[in-house]
Amino acid sequence: MQQTTFTVRPVATIESPLGPGAQTPRQGDEGAPQAWVAFNAEVADAVRDLRAGQDVLLLTWLERADRTVLTVHPRSDPERPLTGVFSTRSPARPNPVGLHRVTILEIADGPRMRVSGLEAWDGTPVIDVKPVLDPHTER
Amino acid sequence: MQQTTFTVRPVATIESPLGPGAQTPRQGDEGAPQAWVAFNAEVADAVRDLRAGQDVLLLTWLERADRTVLTVHPRSDPERPLTGVFSTRSPARPNPVGLHRVTILEIADGPRMRVSGLEAWDGTPVIDVKPVLDPHTER
Repeated sequence: MQQTTFTVRPVATIESPLGPGAQTPRQGDEGAPQAWVAFNAEVADAVRDLRAGQDVLLLTWLERADRTVLTVHPRSDPERPLTGVFSTRSPARPNPVGLHRVTILEIADGPRMRVSGLEAWDGTPVIDVKPVLDPHTER
Repeated sequence: MQQTTFTVRPVATIESPLGPGAQTPRQGDEGAPQAWVAFNAEVADAVRDLRAGQDVLLLTWLERADRTVLTVHPRSDPERPLTGVFSTRSPARPNPVGLHRVTILEIADGPRMRVSGLEAWDGTPVIDVKPVLDPHTER
């Protein structure tokens, strides 16, 4: 079945010390560093109510991921059985969207925002930012 | 700044009684009905470890949304001040990705799965499914 496709246009870019040469934690709560989210100037109005102290969900596009992969060994551990990617957070999946809960530490001109504990590589495109609906029940 | 764009290819389609003519709840816990997620056969391997009883995050592409909108009145209430869309869950946003926490009620051939409480319209494309990392802290 041939289906319609859609075009994703990044709204921001990650600035991070993490990259291909570095050790990347697999989830944001496993020692990931702070990062900057540098927004495109044209989405400034969409950003204007974000504040330091808020928790938000960042959606990224993991452009280096292999989109043809449908099963993986979770956490790249060959001891774990091959698992369908919809049951894992592997970047390898048909649409490589990353979902990251972060805390906003600082808002600056650009606009840009500094966030806590983000495991995405430097240069990763950001495609959306969403509020956490319940601070106690979402990550 | 001209940036790279990316192509989203739907992996499934929502089958739901909800549509343009119906009253659509704004969040899944406000009385949304059950729905079916009908996967494309070619992603069957990605689906194979999903089980009834699991909570998952569905990512949809809200194709009817206005992507040029940067501020909205939250919950379409004109009494609420205009707010940057990155501080709202409005479908209107630069990349109209919907994020829905649902419980899998049934897995069937196709593959397809029946899920609880989904506020998306019939025909909505699904772009990803992710496990909930902590059942108590994610929606």
